[in-house]
Amino acid sequence: MRILVVHGPNLNLLGQREPEIYGHQTLDELDAELRAEGQNLGAEVDCFQSNHEGEVLDRLQKIPEDCVGVVLNPGGWTHTSVALRDAVTTVRVPVIEVHLSNTFARESFRKNDLIAPVCTGTILGLGADGYLAALRVLCRRASAGDE
Amino acid sequence: MRILVVHGPNLNLLGQREPEIYGHQTLDELDAELRAEGQNLGAEVDCFQSNHEGEVLDRLQKIPEDCVGVVLNPGGWTHTSVALRDAVTTVRVPVIEVHLSNTFARESFRKNDLIAPVCTGTILGLGADGYLAALRVLCRRASAGDE
Amino acid sequence: MRILVVHGPNLNLLGQREPEIYGHQTLDELDAELRAEGQNLGAEVDCFQSNHEGEVLDRLQKIPEDCVGVVLNPGGWTHTSVALRDAVTTVRVPVIEVHLSNTFARESFRKNDLIAPVCTGTILGLGADGYLAALRVLCRRASAGDE
Amino acid sequence: MRILVVHGPNLNLLGQREPEIYGHQTLDELDAELRAEGQNLGAEVDCFQSNHEGEVLDRLQKIPEDCVGVVLNPGGWTHTSVALRDAVTTVRVPVIEVHLSNTFARESFRKNDLIAPVCTGTILGLGADGYLAALRVLCRRASAGDE
Amino acid sequence: MRILVVHGPNLNLLGQREPEIYGHQTLDELDAELRAEGQNLGAEVDCFQSNHEGEVLDRLQKIPEDCVGVVLNPGGWTHTSVALRDAVTTVRVPVIEVHLSNTFARESFRKNDLIAPVCTGTILGLGADGYLAALRVLCRRASAGDE
Amino acid sequence: MRILVVHGPNLNLLGQREPEIYGHQTLDELDAELRAEGQNLGAEVDCFQSNHEGEVLDRLQKIPEDCVGVVLNPGGWTHTSVALRDAVTTVRVPVIEVHLSNTFARESFRKNDLIAPVCTGTILGLGADGYLAALRVLCRRASAGDE
Amino acid sequence: MRILVVHGPNLNLLGQREPEIYGHQTLDELDAELRAEGQNLGAEVDCFQSNHEGEVLDRLQKIPEDCVGVVLNPGGWTHTSVALRDAVTTVRVPVIEVHLSNTFARESFRKNDLIAPVCTGTILGLGADGYLAALRVLCRRASAGDE
Amino acid sequence: MRILVVHGPNLNLLGQREPEIYGHQTLDELDAELRAEGQNLGAEVDCFQSNHEGEVLDRLQKIPEDCVGVVLNPGGWTHTSVALRDAVTTVRVPVIEVHLSNTFARESFRKNDLIAPVCTGTILGLGADGYLAALRVLCRRASAGDE
Amino acid sequence: MRILVVHGPNLNLLGQREPEIYGHQTLDELDAELRAEGQNLGAEVDCFQSNHEGEVLDRLQKIPEDCVGVVLNPGGWTHTSVALRDAVTTVRVPVIEVHLSNTFARESFRKNDLIAPVCTGTILGLGADGYLAALRVLCRRASAGDE
Amino acid sequence: MRILVVHGPNLNLLGQREPEIYGHQTLDELDAELRAEGQNLGAEVDCFQSNHEGEVLDRLQKIPEDCVGVVLNPGGWTHTSVALRDAVTTVRVPVIEVHLSNTFARESFRKNDLIAPVCTGTILGLGADGYLAALRVLCRRASAGDE
Amino acid sequence: MRILVVHGPNLNLLGQREPEIYGHQTLDELDAELRAEGQNLGAEVDCFQSNHEGEVLDRLQKIPEDCVGVVLNPGGWTHTSVALRDAVTTVRVPVIEVHLSNTFARESFRKNDLIAPVCTGTILGLGADGYLAALRVLCRRASAGDE
Amino acid sequence: MRILVVHGPNLNLLGQREPEIYGHQTLDELDAELRAEGQNLGAEVDCFQSNHEGEVLDRLQKIPEDCVGVVLNPGGWTHTSVALRDAVTTVRVPVIEVHLSNTFARESFRKNDLIAPVCTGTILGLGADGYLAALRVLCRRASAGDE
Repeated sequence: MRILVVHGPNLNLLGQREPEIYGHQTLDELDAELRAEGQNLGAEVDCFQSNHEGEVLDRLQKIPEDCVGVVLNPGGWTHTSVALRDAVTTVRVPVIEVHLSNTFARESFRKNDLIAPVCTGTILGLGADGYLAALRVLCRRASAGDE
Repeated sequence: MRILVVHGPNLNLLGQREPEIYGHQTLDELDAELRAEGQNLGAEVDCFQSNHEGEVLDRLQKIPEDCVGVVLNPGGWTHTSVALRDAVTTVRVPVIEVHLSNTFARESFRKNDLIAPVCTGTILGLGADGYLAALRVLCRRASAGDE
Repeated sequence: MRILVVHGPNLNLLGQREPEIYGHQTLDELDAELRAEGQNLGAEVDCFQSNHEGEVLDRLQKIPEDCVGVVLNPGGWTHTSVALRDAVTTVRVPVIEVHLSNTFARESFRKNDLIAPVCTGTILGLGADGYLAALRVLCRRASAGDE
Repeated sequence: MRILVVHGPNLNLLGQREPEIYGHQTLDELDAELRAEGQNLGAEVDCFQSNHEGEVLDRLQKIPEDCVGVVLNPGGWTHTSVALRDAVTTVRVPVIEVHLSNTFARESFRKNDLIAPVCTGTILGLGADGYLAALRVLCRRASAGDE
Repeated sequence: MRILVVHGPNLNLLGQREPEIYGHQTLDELDAELRAEGQNLGAEVDCFQSNHEGEVLDRLQKIPEDCVGVVLNPGGWTHTSVALRDAVTTVRVPVIEVHLSNTFARESFRKNDLIAPVCTGTILGLGADGYLAALRVLCRRASAGDE
Repeated sequence: MRILVVHGPNLNLLGQREPEIYGHQTLDELDAELRAEGQNLGAEVDCFQSNHEGEVLDRLQKIPEDCVGVVLNPGGWTHTSVALRDAVTTVRVPVIEVHLSNTFARESFRKNDLIAPVCTGTILGLGADGYLAALRVLCRRASAGDE
Repeated sequence: MRILVVHGPNLNLLGQREPEIYGHQTLDELDAELRAEGQNLGAEVDCFQSNHEGEVLDRLQKIPEDCVGVVLNPGGWTHTSVALRDAVTTVRVPVIEVHLSNTFARESFRKNDLIAPVCTGTILGLGADGYLAALRVLCRRASAGDE
Repeated sequence: MRILVVHGPNLNLLGQREPEIYGHQTLDELDAELRAEGQNLGAEVDCFQSNHEGEVLDRLQKIPEDCVGVVLNPGGWTHTSVALRDAVTTVRVPVIEVHLSNTFARESFRKNDLIAPVCTGTILGLGADGYLAALRVLCRRASAGDE
Repeated sequence: MRILVVHGPNLNLLGQREPEIYGHQTLDELDAELRAEGQNLGAEVDCFQSNHEGEVLDRLQKIPEDCVGVVLNPGGWTHTSVALRDAVTTVRVPVIEVHLSNTFARESFRKNDLIAPVCTGTILGLGADGYLAALRVLCRRASAGDE
Repeated sequence: MRILVVHGPNLNLLGQREPEIYGHQTLDELDAELRAEGQNLGAEVDCFQSNHEGEVLDRLQKIPEDCVGVVLNPGGWTHTSVALRDAVTTVRVPVIEVHLSNTFARESFRKNDLIAPVCTGTILGLGADGYLAALRVLCRRASAGDE
Repeated sequence: MRILVVHGPNLNLLGQREPEIYGHQTLDELDAELRAEGQNLGAEVDCFQSNHEGEVLDRLQKIPEDCVGVVLNPGGWTHTSVALRDAVTTVRVPVIEVHLSNTFARESFRKNDLIAPVCTGTILGLGADGYLAALRVLCRRASAGDE
Repeated sequence: MRILVVHGPNLNLLGQREPEIYGHQTLDELDAELRAEGQNLGAEVDCFQSNHEGEVLDRLQKIPEDCVGVVLNPGGWTHTSVALRDAVTTVRVPVIEVHLSNTFARESFRKNDLIAPVCTGTILGLGADGYLAALRVLCRRASAGDE
């Protein structure tokens, strides 16, 4: 059982960029935490980050056979990318959208979320805990043959 | 360590009302599941449902001393109640907003969320799993003395 | 065969409040007229008024077994209550929305009707005649096994 | 005592067009039902349908002396015709607007109703019952020397 | 001569909730100050707070005979309650709306004031001074047989 | 030298319809006044009224050779007819739009004027004087070989 | 096999009206080209133009038995006629909307297209070529027993 | 009998500024033409131009006793000055608003006309002819003791 | 201790202009009442009115040393002047905005208040009582060394 | 003579993604059909798909010498990419925009088409037939030395 | 060679007003810096500040013969003055708009810039450096006989 | 001391694309001019252009140690890329946004600038002069140890 974690643009700077909003954990540390938790849950966790929309589209179009779910942090594309939205609709497994910060409490343009309506669910504002929660839900549902 | 779970209007009908959206689990079953999970996590879980906005305001204003977090499903008031929003800002512990369904994928008036900007985080569309995830985050953070 | 008539906020003041808009008939007189007409049509008419949204939600959630329809005047909640809208969607019998005044000819915020889209039909501007018409349609359809 | 019933564009297709929305009764059958009910109520019912806006304007401008009310289904012009609205304001007897379907539950452009603010009242979503209810209200009021 | 002072939702928390916005005075202290000032002005001041919209509607519908004015702080309902607005229109004495904070300088949704258009006047941003000013205006006008 | 005067929908009711807005002069009287003034100015004035948009389109498409200008009161079509706007753009002589009433001081939907941007000029709120002024401007410009 | 071609308002002026937008071909020449192309494709092409909305509604309601598709240029009604939209929904064969000019590159009110959502497809900005392309698609699909 | 003509900001540049929109006549020439026409009509015409809003407010507040009407070209203030609007409402004689250009055919912000709703009428797009027409209407009405 | 009272455009006409909205008291009478009340409170009251925005800006920029507060009625500039708003932000003493009428109950463009967000507070609809209340609040706060 | 066909993001999944909207034909099959039709028309057809916006920009900036037209399906970028729009304006040959589905009948955000205003024409909702029609128009115009 | 520098309302307070936004340099110091830089560039720099819109209009209408460009900081009028915009269009030399602060990063009403569309260019957020840069561009272009 | 100059999409076509808007200078020529001016100012200027958003994000995330400022022309991404905005917020040196053309005077969608609020300043409409001015400001501030 495999979970794909996709981090969108600028998330490679985690820990450096606006730490008062995003915290001090780096992306490598977050990915390590997710892989460890995956191991606990019996899942292999593949982490992928890109600043290139096309690379994320390519990746979402080629979900491996044994993948049971996707955790997607679309970053700034959340509010602007119909192409990403269309790509998500092609994924045959559940996709859970995660945002580190509470986008509802930020600039008003961050309230327009093009990706959420085509995901299974969305988790906002819980930092790394949001990724971990998404991971657990996907694993639990896959194990239960549910969803 | 105590967690308060607040269910807003019409959630007493869980399992009966639009099961294609909200699932077949009743509110009693959900509350039992939450209490059980709480026990695993070392927390007492108090569950409360009301169709009366004033009762929810009263309740949020009287968070017990040992309460470390609130899980709040504001139901239909999400989109209309400034009074509830104001009450949430008075709560001294983290509040996580939970919606059973993916409100982003429903009527457009459900996209206006007055409560989310004043919560720690928001979880949408994951059904009972969303409540459970919120519970875990609150307990973990309380245990860590975090947040 | 039973019909539930629900009057929302401020309708207890009927006959006193802005009679140039709402007429001189009191709520008691209106209810009496509805019960009398019900008798003609072979239906018992239960009338209920409340200024408390929660009480109306509670009532709509507990429609009696022999009830064949609801006549609902949501008053000022028409334009603001998603919770009431959600409650109406849980009612298993036809609900007809009635407004005494022609809300289309009043302030612009009265044009936003959250309740109408989830009702069977809506009658505006016909005063007590609107309630009577709704009553007849519900009885006729119940008698015909129609709807 | 005479009642004018005016059906707007495409209503000649009643029974053929989108029967899941408009039902299976044809316009001729509906008109017959209205005329019969009129006879019960002591009123002659004139029915008129046109796809030509100008013909409806002409007709509304020439209400016969003994006419005591108009039942108007403006169809698609409801949302677009200021000219029809202006014509309705020239009618010296009560005009009740009727729509077969619940326009509030359809496309958003159907919520803009230019005609309703200048009518006595509006009935939506009750099918033929809406026409019959309008007919009865108009007759009752005319008989009572009311309105 | 009597003045009714009505405090809406969350105002029972005055002094505790966001003191940088609302100050450190508690509701009991404010009410005592208002009653004392009333005595100076020859008026009995009745103070009432509720988090239940229905209770406020009930209260506004039963203004005592000798009441000459209402001071109303509608709190969060200011922006959302058409029912409260409708209730205010039924009050036969002047109603002055008071807000402790300058709502114009806060979130944009606080600029939509449903209550103000049906009040005699509105006072914003002056804290307890706003209540006192409203009290004086109502007493002076009642004494003068004015307004 | 010929001037075409086109009156749109409901203007045949002039003198009967809302005289507090439109005055007591009938359309025949207005047309007579325009023809008389035309004679003074050396122009034959053709007057035409229709409630049928198609007839007005047909007429505007067939402006006679010796016609030097059009006075157009588009009535309720002002705000809704792109087809009329397109027809006006095909007219090779100046078109002056006239409204009897001050449409800016009426309902807000009357502020959207689709016709004005494609006319030479617009005159609002001056009653019959507006038609006469338009007539004089067209004649003067035609005589001067101007425009 | 028969194709109905419907031209809306002002299209009878083709070749005269704003040739820099619509070109120099007259409507008769265009219709001849369409009939010729129809012959090549084995279809009889009926062409119809009207400035009267009602006539177009009447025509669309009476599609002949052997008709396999409609090419519709709704002209200015595109943006304003719900009645025409409703009529298109009653047509049992594919309807392709054609506009000679690129309406997206013109005034902003021309972007609101009420007709497109109820057509099979839409072709914009290709002049006569758009009509010819629509004709070919309809014939090909009819021949293939497709669509 | 006296008429006041008020020209708003930048109109002193008439003849120099954007002559393709405003023509080649200077303000002095226009004023001379208006005074001459006034003489024909038995009226003294006072002309006044200012780039200072306050000066125009002062002037409108001090209309001479024998003044029977005002011709007002508010220039750029048309779209922005509530103060000017308020001043116009204090004028006890008819005010006709005149614009040299067709403001409906220019930038969209020029469609918001704050002044028109409080004037007797408005004339747009007719250049100097618009002023002359306004002058004639005011004189005629004053002579007739009309308006 | 000194208070500056600034009246904006058209307020010099108080008592003459729309007395059903603004009352019969003249500006001189109002100023006298304010100065008298100031004397009671131990404050010298300077009153200033201008129809010239620049003069008000100049004045607000030169608040005397001993001035402890400003009462500002910005009149029609309330809704349009960013320059006035910017000037108010430069004032080092509290500024209370006062409107004689209830601007919320008037035209919708009067709801946009650019000045209120940068004032200490706002008083609407209480006529001269509003000015007096503002005066008292400013004196009381200055005396208390408060604010 | 050469035609460039550009397919935007996710179109590589044609036949797999939402076949109820996009049909069962794969992109390879579509491209083959286009190349074959090109051969009939005497044109070489180059097909190109990318999920990378930058690659499409690069490609559109380097149109080969002998290319006489572009068929562009911008996919999800249609609604969001000003950069693509700007690139299209640099292309020296006609560009026809094609969408497989009827975007007007889908989510409302798909109605905002940034690309259409800078294309020669647009074809929506006709599936592969839309591409073929665009191809034919481009070839015909190139052959005629037209456009 | 002469450059006119125009400072709008409240800029005379530079150095005093909100120094965290506008810096500590006074207007006199800024003007001195501009004049000195002008001397370096061979240009005489005339500086002018006014809080009176009319004075700025008058000044812009009388640009001296030898003036080769205008640097304009319209302050708060940027967002509200159509009259100023119209005046700028009458200036025959390049006008560069300068704002000391980054207006894009401030209140949303500061994003509506009426002046920018009629200027040669705009410089925002660079403080005094913005004025200097504008000065240099104007001199360089004048020297080059450019623009 | 180093300055990074980043040119966004389509700017590689400078001199070819819409020269009436963007001028005849090529990107190579512009870059040479910037490097030369940099040499005068004692700064090395690195120029970078890409049509790939991801490449620009990557570049902005890796600003060299000795870089003291960024000149950024985001081209079409200005109006659409939240990802680019987020990347700019991560840059630790001042970023000045430059646009060759006056985007305020172009299509309305170009007024929505997502990048400006997170830059130090913005320069619009001054062509290559805008780049040069930005360069000078950055160097001057770096030399002064300022900003």
